[in-house]
Amino acid sequence: MASRAWDDLTGRNPLVGFIDLSLRGASQVFFQNNALTGFIILAAIFWGGHASGNLGVAYGAVVGLVVASFTAILLNSDRNALKQGLFGFNGVLVGAALPTFLAHRPLMWAYLILGAAVSTVATLAVTNVVKNWGVPGSTAPFVFTTWLLLLAAYSLAKIPVASMAPPTLPGAKFAAELHLSGSTLGSILAKNVSQVYLVENVVTGVLFVVAIAVSSLRSAAFALVGSMVGLLVAALFGASGVAINAGLYGFSAVLTAIAVGAVFNPPSFRVTIYAIVATVFTVIVQAALNTAMSPLGIPTLTFPYVLTMWFFLLPKADLAPPSHHQAIANGVLSRE
Amino acid sequence: MASRAWDDLTGRNPLVGFIDLSLRGASQVFFQNNALTGFIILAAIFWGGHASGNLGVAYGAVVGLVVASFTAILLNSDRNALKQGLFGFNGVLVGAALPTFLAHRPLMWAYLILGAAVSTVATLAVTNVVKNWGVPGSTAPFVFTTWLLLLAAYSLAKIPVASMAPPTLPGAKFAAELHLSGSTLGSILAKNVSQVYLVENVVTGVLFVVAIAVSSLRSAAFALVGSMVGLLVAALFGASGVAINAGLYGFSAVLTAIAVGAVFNPPSFRVTIYAIVATVFTVIVQAALNTAMSPLGIPTLTFPYVLTMWFFLLPKADLAPPSHHQAIANGVLSRE
Amino acid sequence: MASRAWDDLTGRNPLVGFIDLSLRGASQVFFQNNALTGFIILAAIFWGGHASGNLGVAYGAVVGLVVASFTAILLNSDRNALKQGLFGFNGVLVGAALPTFLAHRPLMWAYLILGAAVSTVATLAVTNVVKNWGVPGSTAPFVFTTWLLLLAAYSLAKIPVASMAPPTLPGAKFAAELHLSGSTLGSILAKNVSQVYLVENVVTGVLFVVAIAVSSLRSAAFALVGSMVGLLVAALFGASGVAINAGLYGFSAVLTAIAVGAVFNPPSFRVTIYAIVATVFTVIVQAALNTAMSPLGIPTLTFPYVLTMWFFLLPKADLAPPSHHQAIANGVLSRE
Repeated sequence: MASRAWDDLTGRNPLVGFIDLSLRGASQVFFQNNALTGFIILAAIFWGGHASGNLGVAYGAVVGLVVASFTAILLNSDRNALKQGLFGFNGVLVGAALPTFLAHRPLMWAYLILGAAVSTVATLAVTNVVKNWGVPGSTAPFVFTTWLLLLAAYSLAKIPVASMAPPTLPGAKFAAELHLSGSTLGSILAKNVSQVYLVENVVTGVLFVVAIAVSSLRSAAFALVGSMVGLLVAALFGASGVAINAGLYGFSAVLTAIAVGAVFNPPSFRVTIYAIVATVFTVIVQAALNTAMSPLGIPTLTFPYVLTMWFFLLPKADLAPPSHHQAIANGVLSRE
Repeated sequence: MASRAWDDLTGRNPLVGFIDLSLRGASQVFFQNNALTGFIILAAIFWGGHASGNLGVAYGAVVGLVVASFTAILLNSDRNALKQGLFGFNGVLVGAALPTFLAHRPLMWAYLILGAAVSTVATLAVTNVVKNWGVPGSTAPFVFTTWLLLLAAYSLAKIPVASMAPPTLPGAKFAAELHLSGSTLGSILAKNVSQVYLVENVVTGVLFVVAIAVSSLRSAAFALVGSMVGLLVAALFGASGVAINAGLYGFSAVLTAIAVGAVFNPPSFRVTIYAIVATVFTVIVQAALNTAMSPLGIPTLTFPYVLTMWFFLLPKADLAPPSHHQAIANGVLSRE
Repeated sequence: MASRAWDDLTGRNPLVGFIDLSLRGASQVFFQNNALTGFIILAAIFWGGHASGNLGVAYGAVVGLVVASFTAILLNSDRNALKQGLFGFNGVLVGAALPTFLAHRPLMWAYLILGAAVSTVATLAVTNVVKNWGVPGSTAPFVFTTWLLLLAAYSLAKIPVASMAPPTLPGAKFAAELHLSGSTLGSILAKNVSQVYLVENVVTGVLFVVAIAVSSLRSAAFALVGSMVGLLVAALFGASGVAINAGLYGFSAVLTAIAVGAVFNPPSFRVTIYAIVATVFTVIVQAALNTAMSPLGIPTLTFPYVLTMWFFLLPKADLAPPSHHQAIANGVLSRE
């Protein structure tokens, strides 16, 4: 079989091994560990970049992926995690994000390479911070690294901003309401998925679902559930029609649905209900962070997903808040 | 005795048991575990809502309490903590806060129910995060959940804001200074307590102190100390007279005084001094967060208390900062 | 020898002992444990204050140092850490920062004393929070305490702001570019070091380097490397020439270079490269936080250093992000 031959090759040829772990990294944004999934995803990103005339996003994704994975090798990172692509998926997102929001000058590409390398450092840092809480860091390293790089651009004359909403105080002005038809419905559902990689393209979104399904039907199903719930809830509460149409209210919902419903909990009816509640709340968090980021002029990236995922995965069985009826232990004043 | 009969009933009748743990939840905002205290508090909230013509706050508090407690049951939460009301007190505050700041439409009530349910998830999440630091999560889950819900309202056309100060950059314009007389003094001292539940009402504040005293005289005494220190320090540093008059510089001070002075440390003279310093600092933190929240247009809620309480309870006996004279252990580059 | 005689005296005379640990505290900002280093640093701060006509900064530094150290004694803090000055170095910075940014009224000095005392509480709090992550809290307690005190000043009429950039939305307007000559080059390299203590003075910067070299040549060398890298990277990316000239793009870079390159990692070629990458990234973080703090009207203080230092010291050998292919342990829904 093709798959077996590929596995043999990755073990023998270091270059093929590196390509394999990079492709797996591209698939890990959607919580998959599958080189074919990663390959389809990268192809879909190139399609989206070609269609929008911004192939820089696709090149950036590849550069970010390679730099982040290579940095992990330089840092002697855990080989098993490395081979699964777990050090690459934050880099691919850093690499897709910077050419989306910043002007494509040579210095921006140096900036991107630095950022992708730091995303691997950040992955190790976040892993250390959250390790005792029993939750994944997921795309938090991408978010923190990219926020810093985008905020800095406002202070750096040689790294011009290309397309971010300028800093503005939140207000009560709302964009036009959403007008749904059959075709816009399908378009939004696909874009909700494609925007996970900062691409607004229907074909890309469809290919992403196919790529996920190649690796896990359950994950693909929850991606669709997340996309639908995201659209419904955003429309129900009157979120900006422009943002909904662009898929910007759905991509975090898609990730929450897969993470909480299909990956980090064992399948059950209660888990499905819990995942849907988490997905609904993700839309609220998306709206909240849209407000909160507004004075800073930077996008939320996938932080609505990260925050909601942490809210809903941090609860563990047998946790009890401390009683309010006894002094806490070993306080600084307990030693006279 | 009435108390014994009630205890018997709560054990036998599930509905009475649920009412009991809900009432205890209402009392836990003030660190008490007492159904009668909770009953008086709810009655005082209804009085305040009736007096101000905004009974929605009182209904919201009850709905939030019930939803949060019921969510804890659905999540099979720790029974002992559940019976003490430790899963209800964040919900009651979410339920009081939303009708204070948002317009009372049917969709707001769905929003409130979602928020109250999430407050229980957030309680479990925060409990996990802080468990190794030996401090309580206290009302942090209420603050985080409600901040998200209020921020989101600025981005959601169907959840209109009713009464929050609009987003504005902090400036050097100060409200009129405070003019104290005997009657305003008593009024502020009571409102400093009533504002813990977002109610601005003298009778409510007095009833709250009575309710606390029913359960713990020491806690009631520190509530009064906190209220007085809050007023004095805010006046000394020239905080806004309008805000001081409304009790908005005192409610976090009240909570800090009770938490640090009466609940989470064993009683001693040094603890009392420490609690007073913490209460003084709470007023600074209140002023600081008023500034920091200003561009976002949302209230601080009880976060000045939460932050100060963490500052003053995180220190433990025998803690030492790491020496600056040796490499830290197991760094990523220690593995060649 | 003088050093031996001094050590004898510190053991016998409590006042001399207190002076010794305070001087060591002044040296700990630069990660040194050396009374002579601390003495030279304080002298250099007085020189800078005298030269700029703002001796309040120097007096504030001394008051902050004494109050913070004394508070640590009152709290029975770990004696070994106390003797190394590890409870004083955040206080000295609080004491230097407030007279830099706030008007010098009597009430400000009460405010400063409160802040310096709280900096010790904050040091213990931060130590508790980070202890399981194997990283130092470093100057984070100074940053958090001072941010709160400065933010509060915007809400407190009796604590007037003297010299902070007023709150403003980040924009795409950039200050004049940097024009380097031989003399400005040397001036910037020295000010990059002096600004660690909020002093803009060439002689002070040179004396700081001498003071560090008295205790550790390696630390002094990395201070110079950090200063140079900070200048180069800020110029390369087009940071504000005014800020670069004042040393404001270099002081965090200096601290990162010493911390990552000379103190918290064992010396090696790989560590040196890692430290340089961290120092480069510190400049990006400085630019990012300049943007992020802009709507609040407060300075970044040393937080660009703290954040970058945490990014680069949190990674540990053998850390692996959790696999995305199995449910995480003990989730709240795992108990039916």
